[in-house]
Amino acid sequence: MSQHAASPEAATAPVSRAFASDNWSGAHPEVIEALALANTGHVPAYGGDPVTARFQEVARELFGAEAEAFPVFNGTGANVLALQAALPRWGAVICARTAHINTDEAGAPEKTGGLKLFGIETPDGKLTPELVAREAWGFGSEHRSQAGAVSISQVTELGTVYTPHEIRALADQAHELGLVLHVDGSRLGNAAAHLGASLRELTTDVGVDLLSLGGTKNGLLGAEAVVVLRPEAADGIRYLRKIDLQLASKMRFISAQLLALYEGDLWLRSATRANELAQRLASGVRALEETVPGVRIAHPVESNAVFVELPAEAATRAQSAFAFGAWPTQPGLYRLMCAFDTTEADVDALLTVLAG
Amino acid sequence: MSQHAASPEAATAPVSRAFASDNWSGAHPEVIEALALANTGHVPAYGGDPVTARFQEVARELFGAEAEAFPVFNGTGANVLALQAALPRWGAVICARTAHINTDEAGAPEKTGGLKLFGIETPDGKLTPELVAREAWGFGSEHRSQAGAVSISQVTELGTVYTPHEIRALADQAHELGLVLHVDGSRLGNAAAHLGASLRELTTDVGVDLLSLGGTKNGLLGAEAVVVLRPEAADGIRYLRKIDLQLASKMRFISAQLLALYEGDLWLRSATRANELAQRLASGVRALEETVPGVRIAHPVESNAVFVELPAEAATRAQSAFAFGAWPTQPGLYRLMCAFDTTEADVDALLTVLAG
Amino acid sequence: MSQHAASPEAATAPVSRAFASDNWSGAHPEVIEALALANTGHVPAYGGDPVTARFQEVARELFGAEAEAFPVFNGTGANVLALQAALPRWGAVICARTAHINTDEAGAPEKTGGLKLFGIETPDGKLTPELVAREAWGFGSEHRSQAGAVSISQVTELGTVYTPHEIRALADQAHELGLVLHVDGSRLGNAAAHLGASLRELTTDVGVDLLSLGGTKNGLLGAEAVVVLRPEAADGIRYLRKIDLQLASKMRFISAQLLALYEGDLWLRSATRANELAQRLASGVRALEETVPGVRIAHPVESNAVFVELPAEAATRAQSAFAFGAWPTQPGLYRLMCAFDTTEADVDALLTVLAG
Amino acid sequence: MSQHAASPEAATAPVSRAFASDNWSGAHPEVIEALALANTGHVPAYGGDPVTARFQEVARELFGAEAEAFPVFNGTGANVLALQAALPRWGAVICARTAHINTDEAGAPEKTGGLKLFGIETPDGKLTPELVAREAWGFGSEHRSQAGAVSISQVTELGTVYTPHEIRALADQAHELGLVLHVDGSRLGNAAAHLGASLRELTTDVGVDLLSLGGTKNGLLGAEAVVVLRPEAADGIRYLRKIDLQLASKMRFISAQLLALYEGDLWLRSATRANELAQRLASGVRALEETVPGVRIAHPVESNAVFVELPAEAATRAQSAFAFGAWPTQPGLYRLMCAFDTTEADVDALLTVLAG
Repeated sequence: MSQHAASPEAATAPVSRAFASDNWSGAHPEVIEALALANTGHVPAYGGDPVTARFQEVARELFGAEAEAFPVFNGTGANVLALQAALPRWGAVICARTAHINTDEAGAPEKTGGLKLFGIETPDGKLTPELVAREAWGFGSEHRSQAGAVSISQVTELGTVYTPHEIRALADQAHELGLVLHVDGSRLGNAAAHLGASLRELTTDVGVDLLSLGGTKNGLLGAEAVVVLRPEAADGIRYLRKIDLQLASKMRFISAQLLALYEGDLWLRSATRANELAQRLASGVRALEETVPGVRIAHPVESNAVFVELPAEAATRAQSAFAFGAWPTQPGLYRLMCAFDTTEADVDALLTVLAG
Repeated sequence: MSQHAASPEAATAPVSRAFASDNWSGAHPEVIEALALANTGHVPAYGGDPVTARFQEVARELFGAEAEAFPVFNGTGANVLALQAALPRWGAVICARTAHINTDEAGAPEKTGGLKLFGIETPDGKLTPELVAREAWGFGSEHRSQAGAVSISQVTELGTVYTPHEIRALADQAHELGLVLHVDGSRLGNAAAHLGASLRELTTDVGVDLLSLGGTKNGLLGAEAVVVLRPEAADGIRYLRKIDLQLASKMRFISAQLLALYEGDLWLRSATRANELAQRLASGVRALEETVPGVRIAHPVESNAVFVELPAEAATRAQSAFAFGAWPTQPGLYRLMCAFDTTEADVDALLTVLAG
Repeated sequence: MSQHAASPEAATAPVSRAFASDNWSGAHPEVIEALALANTGHVPAYGGDPVTARFQEVARELFGAEAEAFPVFNGTGANVLALQAALPRWGAVICARTAHINTDEAGAPEKTGGLKLFGIETPDGKLTPELVAREAWGFGSEHRSQAGAVSISQVTELGTVYTPHEIRALADQAHELGLVLHVDGSRLGNAAAHLGASLRELTTDVGVDLLSLGGTKNGLLGAEAVVVLRPEAADGIRYLRKIDLQLASKMRFISAQLLALYEGDLWLRSATRANELAQRLASGVRALEETVPGVRIAHPVESNAVFVELPAEAATRAQSAFAFGAWPTQPGLYRLMCAFDTTEADVDALLTVLAG
Repeated sequence: MSQHAASPEAATAPVSRAFASDNWSGAHPEVIEALALANTGHVPAYGGDPVTARFQEVARELFGAEAEAFPVFNGTGANVLALQAALPRWGAVICARTAHINTDEAGAPEKTGGLKLFGIETPDGKLTPELVAREAWGFGSEHRSQAGAVSISQVTELGTVYTPHEIRALADQAHELGLVLHVDGSRLGNAAAHLGASLRELTTDVGVDLLSLGGTKNGLLGAEAVVVLRPEAADGIRYLRKIDLQLASKMRFISAQLLALYEGDLWLRSATRANELAQRLASGVRALEETVPGVRIAHPVESNAVFVELPAEAATRAQSAFAFGAWPTQPGLYRLMCAFDTTEADVDALLTVLAG
């Protein structure tokens, strides 16, 4: 029997510009160009190359002089690597129950990382110190996996965004407890664009210790990085990157993508664009709330994700024209993602279909 | 303290076209073009795209109708994934002591894959049925990890090549014992070029069950694939690819590379070119054997690797001009790798330096 | 620094007969005698001995002709082994959030077993088909760990008991979904005593596939067993027992304990006794509910556990005389455990102290 | 199909006092008595009991004021726990290829411990600094698992014994390299008895950092301990013991066994007795070397193991009367183990059968 049974996500895929996920989009043309430019003769493998060195400098410019970046292949890899490097074998991670590490990584944090996750129910995907406190106990008990990190997603899986103030509160609590604060920043740029904040104001400046810095969902072909913001927060990450199957031999081609995104303002341009389209979509949906019964914006639209409740009939109609996904844990809830290359026409066409 | 202490391999890196490893080379220009061509709007993520579907067809054309390919990021990822999919939790792998999985993957097969390796001493990096028999025992004993796979490298880490006849003998033995035969084919193209054989004649036709199909060392930016040649030989590989952190979201950009290499004859052109340069280098070294005492070809040159014994003085002189590595387990032994983009001038310049 | 920092559980330990846990009790004298009787010359190690063979027969008598028992050291070991044997590497376990495997095993199921747990909030520690359905989804998606087992605790961690009817409903659902039903039966005897049911009526007869059969908490020195009730439900358990560090070389001394408990009615006598003392304690506490404000039985008393809410002053007073523990996740809640050797005098003394 | 297919070791088991393994023996009567004595009412679980505290004192008396003991269930558990506590996730262990951890633990060090083993060929099961040096390289390279411990077996799996001087040399080398020296001491008492040395003279005094202290093979029912001799050599061992499924709830019954063995001289009496019988057996075999062609003592007899080469006919004859095992990796080689309860009559009867 074929092992390629289609995954549910691929079920509704008829059109070219979808609202299924920002990883259905392609790569920004500037990124392809950067790859071509990096393709110049022999350079040391495994990160000893000048492109990676330059990305290292950029990481320090963006995140502070102590920052150290470790390019990797994908987001799950970045998360597992960052958390493994932060935690001993007996460590656990406090996260939202909806966190990507808990719901979308097939158990890789547990199975490959050897981590225990304490998932906490939240209304909006966001942890607070009060919520964290529910699982921050049992220190010193050999019967309980020892919480060693708090991990938050910025943007969250529900499209919401932490303010710098909120992150600072979580960082302060974590540090008081002797924990590390990790940010799964696969859409960090979208959060920064929404808040009008720099990347640093959302991370280093508010006490974040470890960052999974996204790239793929913001127009790269496939490149992410673990960025260690506080050197003491991680140990052995060089070795773990290899063990976690995340060490690229021709690393320049990973680093070149990251450099294309982060050396200038491409990350901000692309994220801003995707966010704006999401706002356009949200406005349109809100207008529909009055005319199409059962249509409702379900979560604050603070990034490039629009969560909508749709009546079955409208959902079916829209999914026959545009690929997008039903949220698995809540019947009637759908996620509409915009990407850097989504157009106003795409959004308007979707709205037209939804209007019926 | 920086976690970026230089790895030994990066120590000697002064020049542009090196003999350090084929992964110091860049990407073939046709591959960069293929990436640009694949960059067309939205497609389903995680392998639901047409480029991946096309690569799937090509894999069947190359390896037979039952073949199924699973694109991944890198060679260590391919090996760990293939072997995990072939073995139960109590399984072990019989391999040469010099195998890449045993010596160059930082323990990832054990630590991430949960596998036990039975490494066997060989004169030339090649297993034989007689050698395999040394570790193929203890079946049914709960005290011994249960051998479930034989893994060979084609090309081996010492640059030698298995003939189809030799592979067939290993496959027959493995199958009689109820084991699976896996080929780490990170340089499979170089072996095929050397033997004048098709990829299929080296794998499916001689009983190979599972293949790690290389790409990166033969001119890709970074792409490999696990190819299941006999469907019953692997289980759960879709799930394991995700757990092993090897599932690309924008998989088209991995598949496009593999397609560029394997749809036509680029793999063969590039491998042939690298092999020819290695032969040129080997001939030059053999000529030096008479004039420079202590210079000696150490292993048969059957691919793009030339293993040479060098006197310390000659090694130092050459390494000041060209990056290449000392073989860690044998003092005085060096590995000189040619790549698809190595030139005659590079080879001749190295020979001149070695001549003193 | 000493690594023996006291665990919280050990904090309040002044007296000889405690209500802290049934594992504070000693061993039943008949069990010590059984050890002495098993101590006769040489027998094959690792389970090839006649005592283990006899326990095997007893397991079949108790659980049916297909049952196969695997003696192990402790309860966490039994659970991890059973679930590993039931699940592939990509498997997940659906359990109550309060389950021992989720809260009291230090992450061993994840870290040693490589399992993902889907913990579900319950009012009373008991799963129902409706609750299980919340996590029984995503089959075939490579992004989600694949649920392969439902695990229930009988007795639950909150002292409640599943009826045979309730177990049957869970088994039917599990089997329809292609899942296995596992019972963590560290206190299975207490459940059977409470219900007046045989062990088989609570397991094999109602569709349970795999059982962690308790012993230690019911008067053994230290012995448990994984019992496979449906042979197809587990694979490789012999090998996994060794890998999971649960294979006793002198297994007769583990089996002799289990035999002492289960060959006759010692398990039932001891469990009945512990349950009766818990009822005596519960009655006394209920009487106090009217006189001491804030005292309240918090969960149905269906086994040897009595969960009580206590005002701080009463708790402090009682803990200075008797060791027992505060429930970590609910302030003001305490667990009072009776054991096979608890006496009426112990219970009455505790009640007197609680009365103030 | 039954999962209880007999393991090879159990194949030849007809008689009561065997030469198969010291773990075929029962428990010393004094140990059973100690269990009965420890069976007094309630005590804190998980090691908070007075028996464990007393064993802790004894460990300090035997091994020095800094020693800390962690009772566990079995030898494989002790080894995996000790090495995990000594090594980071990226660590590797240098050991003899014949080491128990490499050949008899079903891959548990790799699969459960997440360790890489570098097994080295030795003539007699003993490492030397020269041999260790063969694998003590690649520090700082992310491609190589980082050697963090040297593990030796005392007594070795071939029955040979390290002198204190030899251990000191290994410890000095290990410490210079920043490694830890671990001793798998499942038969440490036999080595001490052979050398006329104290346990401390073989461990703490010669630089050993971590010890797996045996008990089961020297007359216990089942109890071992990890003893940390240098506190900085291990980290998190309390947590890891739980995660490794080695934390006994009623720990007093593990500790009582260890106390019975090590508080007085029972360990020495029993080990001396077993060694003496082995010498008697060896003398008898040597006498046979001249009369029975093909009979030969194969390794120095320095403990309770006698390795003999036997002609097939003699082996068959002897195995029909006494259980003992063929050495799996060398045809014609057999291991004859004496235990604390082996008698002169047993030995003489075996010799008579061998004489033919």
